[in-house]
Amino acid sequence: MNGRIGVWFIGARGSVATTTVVGALAIGAGAAGRTGCVADLPGPDAAGAPDISDLVFGGHDVTATTLPKRAEALAQAGVVPAHLPAAVVDGLADVDARIRHGVLADHGPQRASADRIEADLREFRSANELDRVVVIDISSTEPPLSAAATAATASPDALEAALDGPVPVLPASCLYAYAAFRAGCAYVGFTPSPGPRPDAIAALAATRGLPWAGSDGKTGETLLKSALAPMFATRALRVRSWSSVNLLGGGDGETLADPANADSKTASKAHGLPQMLGHAVDGPLHIDYVPDMGDAKTAWDHISFEGFLGTRMTLQFTWAGIDSALAAPLVLDLARLVARAHEAGEAGPLPALGFFFKDPAGTDEHRLAAQWDALVAWCARLGSTTGGTGVTP
Amino acid sequence: MNGRIGVWFIGARGSVATTTVVGALAIGAGAAGRTGCVADLPGPDAAGAPDISDLVFGGHDVTATTLPKRAEALAQAGVVPAHLPAAVVDGLADVDARIRHGVLADHGPQRASADRIEADLREFRSANELDRVVVIDISSTEPPLSAAATAATASPDALEAALDGPVPVLPASCLYAYAAFRAGCAYVGFTPSPGPRPDAIAALAATRGLPWAGSDGKTGETLLKSALAPMFATRALRVRSWSSVNLLGGGDGETLADPANADSKTASKAHGLPQMLGHAVDGPLHIDYVPDMGDAKTAWDHISFEGFLGTRMTLQFTWAGIDSALAAPLVLDLARLVARAHEAGEAGPLPALGFFFKDPAGTDEHRLAAQWDALVAWCARLGSTTGGTGVTP
Amino acid sequence: MNGRIGVWFIGARGSVATTTVVGALAIGAGAAGRTGCVADLPGPDAAGAPDISDLVFGGHDVTATTLPKRAEALAQAGVVPAHLPAAVVDGLADVDARIRHGVLADHGPQRASADRIEADLREFRSANELDRVVVIDISSTEPPLSAAATAATASPDALEAALDGPVPVLPASCLYAYAAFRAGCAYVGFTPSPGPRPDAIAALAATRGLPWAGSDGKTGETLLKSALAPMFATRALRVRSWSSVNLLGGGDGETLADPANADSKTASKAHGLPQMLGHAVDGPLHIDYVPDMGDAKTAWDHISFEGFLGTRMTLQFTWAGIDSALAAPLVLDLARLVARAHEAGEAGPLPALGFFFKDPAGTDEHRLAAQWDALVAWCARLGSTTGGTGVTP
Amino acid sequence: MNGRIGVWFIGARGSVATTTVVGALAIGAGAAGRTGCVADLPGPDAAGAPDISDLVFGGHDVTATTLPKRAEALAQAGVVPAHLPAAVVDGLADVDARIRHGVLADHGPQRASADRIEADLREFRSANELDRVVVIDISSTEPPLSAAATAATASPDALEAALDGPVPVLPASCLYAYAAFRAGCAYVGFTPSPGPRPDAIAALAATRGLPWAGSDGKTGETLLKSALAPMFATRALRVRSWSSVNLLGGGDGETLADPANADSKTASKAHGLPQMLGHAVDGPLHIDYVPDMGDAKTAWDHISFEGFLGTRMTLQFTWAGIDSALAAPLVLDLARLVARAHEAGEAGPLPALGFFFKDPAGTDEHRLAAQWDALVAWCARLGSTTGGTGVTP
Repeated sequence: MNGRIGVWFIGARGSVATTTVVGALAIGAGAAGRTGCVADLPGPDAAGAPDISDLVFGGHDVTATTLPKRAEALAQAGVVPAHLPAAVVDGLADVDARIRHGVLADHGPQRASADRIEADLREFRSANELDRVVVIDISSTEPPLSAAATAATASPDALEAALDGPVPVLPASCLYAYAAFRAGCAYVGFTPSPGPRPDAIAALAATRGLPWAGSDGKTGETLLKSALAPMFATRALRVRSWSSVNLLGGGDGETLADPANADSKTASKAHGLPQMLGHAVDGPLHIDYVPDMGDAKTAWDHISFEGFLGTRMTLQFTWAGIDSALAAPLVLDLARLVARAHEAGEAGPLPALGFFFKDPAGTDEHRLAAQWDALVAWCARLGSTTGGTGVTP
Repeated sequence: MNGRIGVWFIGARGSVATTTVVGALAIGAGAAGRTGCVADLPGPDAAGAPDISDLVFGGHDVTATTLPKRAEALAQAGVVPAHLPAAVVDGLADVDARIRHGVLADHGPQRASADRIEADLREFRSANELDRVVVIDISSTEPPLSAAATAATASPDALEAALDGPVPVLPASCLYAYAAFRAGCAYVGFTPSPGPRPDAIAALAATRGLPWAGSDGKTGETLLKSALAPMFATRALRVRSWSSVNLLGGGDGETLADPANADSKTASKAHGLPQMLGHAVDGPLHIDYVPDMGDAKTAWDHISFEGFLGTRMTLQFTWAGIDSALAAPLVLDLARLVARAHEAGEAGPLPALGFFFKDPAGTDEHRLAAQWDALVAWCARLGSTTGGTGVTP
Repeated sequence: MNGRIGVWFIGARGSVATTTVVGALAIGAGAAGRTGCVADLPGPDAAGAPDISDLVFGGHDVTATTLPKRAEALAQAGVVPAHLPAAVVDGLADVDARIRHGVLADHGPQRASADRIEADLREFRSANELDRVVVIDISSTEPPLSAAATAATASPDALEAALDGPVPVLPASCLYAYAAFRAGCAYVGFTPSPGPRPDAIAALAATRGLPWAGSDGKTGETLLKSALAPMFATRALRVRSWSSVNLLGGGDGETLADPANADSKTASKAHGLPQMLGHAVDGPLHIDYVPDMGDAKTAWDHISFEGFLGTRMTLQFTWAGIDSALAAPLVLDLARLVARAHEAGEAGPLPALGFFFKDPAGTDEHRLAAQWDALVAWCARLGSTTGGTGVTP
Repeated sequence: MNGRIGVWFIGARGSVATTTVVGALAIGAGAAGRTGCVADLPGPDAAGAPDISDLVFGGHDVTATTLPKRAEALAQAGVVPAHLPAAVVDGLADVDARIRHGVLADHGPQRASADRIEADLREFRSANELDRVVVIDISSTEPPLSAAATAATASPDALEAALDGPVPVLPASCLYAYAAFRAGCAYVGFTPSPGPRPDAIAALAATRGLPWAGSDGKTGETLLKSALAPMFATRALRVRSWSSVNLLGGGDGETLADPANADSKTASKAHGLPQMLGHAVDGPLHIDYVPDMGDAKTAWDHISFEGFLGTRMTLQFTWAGIDSALAAPLVLDLARLVARAHEAGEAGPLPALGFFFKDPAGTDEHRLAAQWDALVAWCARLGSTTGGTGVTP
């Protein structure tokens, strides 16, 4: 089963995409190990997902710097090992040749943009003889939906009307998700951008029988929150304040330096804590752009809590990670597991993939261990399923 | 059901015992809340355990400073609220009147010591008309078992012979556990001392149909390890080194300044990490006595890990807790849940209580969330049981 | 020499004032030591400043909660020892009886406000037979000067015209400083509020021959910066980014939650770093109000720097202080040293007191060790001076 | 003046030596900047020290791995930029050709070893037409002096007798320092090894009119202590405990994993704190070998201190440095400044270089800022001197 799987990146020349493709090529060539790849662990491996070497990459981007050049830059910054880009340069060039120019939300009629995305996806699938395609958004974070976009995505009719209208109303992520579903592709929203989540777009996925997952990869500080908050809750320790600071310098940091875009991210990050603790919690949540940090991302959290008889105590942690290195293996995991879900006939949001997301679609479960249990159980179920309907339209 | 429950502390005038009794009296009087009390959370509350106000306290200790005086000192040190000791002074005096002089392992014939402990326990139960008694060791940490003590606890016959011999072979904790089981009491080892764990003593508990739990309350740095290590494992991130430093100044710190005693503690703390990660891990584990820290305990952990393509990242945390305040509510939880297990007819080690311990008896499960799930499931089972045989002999 | 010295607080019932007065009374009574008191160290002690027991306190405030009550609240919060407020309650009541209702910038004609402040100061001095008075601003931080206030303080004529005008233009701190100088008092600006710094007000001090010091007590995170930045500079290590987060919950935190007020503080805090490093530095500077923190103040700084051949390294620190306890002894130091300077005939800004301030008046020196050397040298000079003209007008 | 200066490394193929030589060659070629080089800062630059490009390197080592290979390994580990080793490979090979096999303390008669070292140094100077030579010990840390070695270095006569004896008594560092002074070379002890410090060896330097500096380069955690401890002292804040943990994985870490060697280092690190604070301080000082850390070195310090009225507060910091990158520029600084001192006719220990050392010879001053002031003053004096007697014998 499985066959050939296409992975189409929105943001195909960004740091995360480049790291993902370099890694997948290196793993496929036996030049790198699978550290960070959840889908290969005992438990998730029962799903019967396609192997990394079965993935064919392509995508959209609006920048012209080629993948081989981006890979070199990441190697110089220490994000990927110095020798790897040269070792996989041919594979990188192949992928780069499959990258098409992306659409911008406010350039031209939106119907035409959606049609062009859909055509690119269909062409990618047929030209590469792919059995199915997963579209993954790893482009820059968009602001939250405008009021007009909310109205335009409230129903399928409103959506079609908006697409036909002269004014660009929808954000790019919604155009991409709409086009992906129209082309019969599964979808992963790895950023906090709206993408597949508005009603009318989610309805389209349901109608077409297509699975999707999101939103916003849980790679660093929020990952730690989801491991630590349940500890406080199950020990009956009352968290009084939880202050969070994120210093990051990469492209994501620059995007998030714009307060409008940061609103999406902070909203996405803030969802889980009250859910896990059972009450609202005081404390700031900062995301700061510090260009000097480059691809490194440092988070400091300060947690003040109350124990027996009101005793006050604190926990603080500092997480020093490399953002792209944390995201890339999860992108591969999601490509493989969503492709398998598609094959097995699953449709709509996939709550069992909440393990991977800051703002999981289809579930309110944020506790990391409970998400892991749900993932393992779902993979076991998938593993006992033979195929399914997941044929491409 | 439940009736009147006796709680007998080995170390009844120590910081943990004092904080526990002050808290239990204050909670019983409505003068304090139940922050930190796990047994009252949804899930564990299904067990049908006795309430805090049903507990009657007594114990052994070798120091003469009374509970009211200890409580005042803890209030001045900020471990309990300043106003509480005076508010519960009568209750503290009542408990203090039930404290008997403890035994030291090397003072006099060990048979006589064991008999005296047993008599004290039987007198406590009858004088206070208790339905059952849980003995809880919260005294100073002992060194690991000597070779002679290991031999002497290898079988019931060896044990009885050793007790009758002229040379003191057994550590005090084993004398206490032996006497507790002879007196028909359940037992909790809240320290890393051997207590009920050697074969011959565990066999006695089994023969008498008595439940016990241990070892070494998981209150701080190890608690965090059990919340964080599964995060690395389920994200396929390879931990390369995990360095731990514990600075503590209380009585426990002073005991642990003796390397022989510290061996028990570091062994107890070191069990879980390789189990949770699936491989051995580099890095020191220090426990340092810093008198200046008083009852505060600060732990710093530095974790170096490897992600996708070998990228190196770090996590570090600082935990600033008050040891007695963290331990006391767990002592109450264990008293209540072990009393309930006794009532329900459970015997031998209680693996479902691994949630509370660094070195859980009867199980290799160290992951906090999995321990929580096991605890909740066990409490649900207990809750559906009516009574059991747990009659006192 | 020295005689009786009056200390008049603007903000006389705030946390800092209360801690200062409790401490001064306790030290005077031999009930507390002088930890934190710089003026009693070898070096500064050569100045011949008045002793703490020679200080007579009074002040303005706009709140009605009395000093004894404030002291009790601080004791409960652990800012001052539990037993002290009762031990000095009579002294606190005496000081409280000398507190007068403060002025608000926008209530009534500003000339009348200034006159009332001046009258209160003169009455304080004569009623208590004081040889001289130091006015110290420890009230809430004001926003930076408005354009109108800047214009109104550009020259003595403009200032007098503004005071006579119907519209309130000057911030309260400028009214207080103006009135203090008119009354022949020295002045200390312990907050970042403008107070004595605008040209026309500083000119008044010069005209009247009165010394003043400011601005903004250097008590925590900025203190550390002034100790650490010279280390990087003299080791030729290039600081690339310096990110700062301050979590604070007291009254100061609440004031600073208003972005307008926070502007003064962040401006004041930001002055020193480029000066000490010789170049601008990237990185955010957050001041967050976290009510849960109470009087505790936690600062986290993350410094990314570059060493030999461009190697990147980091330093981070966490400072967990009690704001009032850090400020109070410096307030006493400043009262004593400024009184001594007044006595010795010094006038205008006192750059040698830059050691105490985030934004030192009269100097660009921010390096802590250099400031210490300057302070010690100045105190030695003061010590060799007999008296001076510092008579009160 | 200045002429050609030889720099002879004991440990010429270690990480520090390799980083130093790579850096010096790169700086000389204009391929790298001077970050980290103190001698080029305003102040020290007044000394008139030789330039980095005037230095000719050679040395002893007991390992056979060549400098070009060591440089490649350091580049892979990220200690030096990836492109540099290839850019300076010819220069590295030249230096490597000047490396001679080192002596081990316990191999053969010590007189013969000393003679061979002296001959190597004289040959280095004449073959390369050097005006003077500075010998710098950057080899592994030795244990503290044995009782026998202490006796053997108590007087010149005892020293000569010991060298002539059949039993190896002196540690290698003392043989090197002895031979260096016999050969008319200046000496720098960059490790805590005894080297030039025992009486008889220091006396030899005095007799020959040779300058020397030491001991133990102050590169990381101790550097921070010397910046922070004066802050507490001059603010009259009483440090109650100062706990230090150093995690390091490089060759130095491995040597220090041997407790005998670690004793030298912890003794060296412990000198300054009581000196700077004026009293003894509680708290552990750990140096842990964590192989996984490689060349990175992470230090965590926890400082508990007391402020006004006994209020307790804490500071903690984490320093994440690259040991060789921190040491290398200081090694260059010391080579240049000691060569200049030699030229200017200074002899004996150079206390003005205490700025660079954990355990400064000839002075008790540990405060970083005071050391900086002393260094700058000394450099100014040196700069106003023309030459001196520093001719080679």
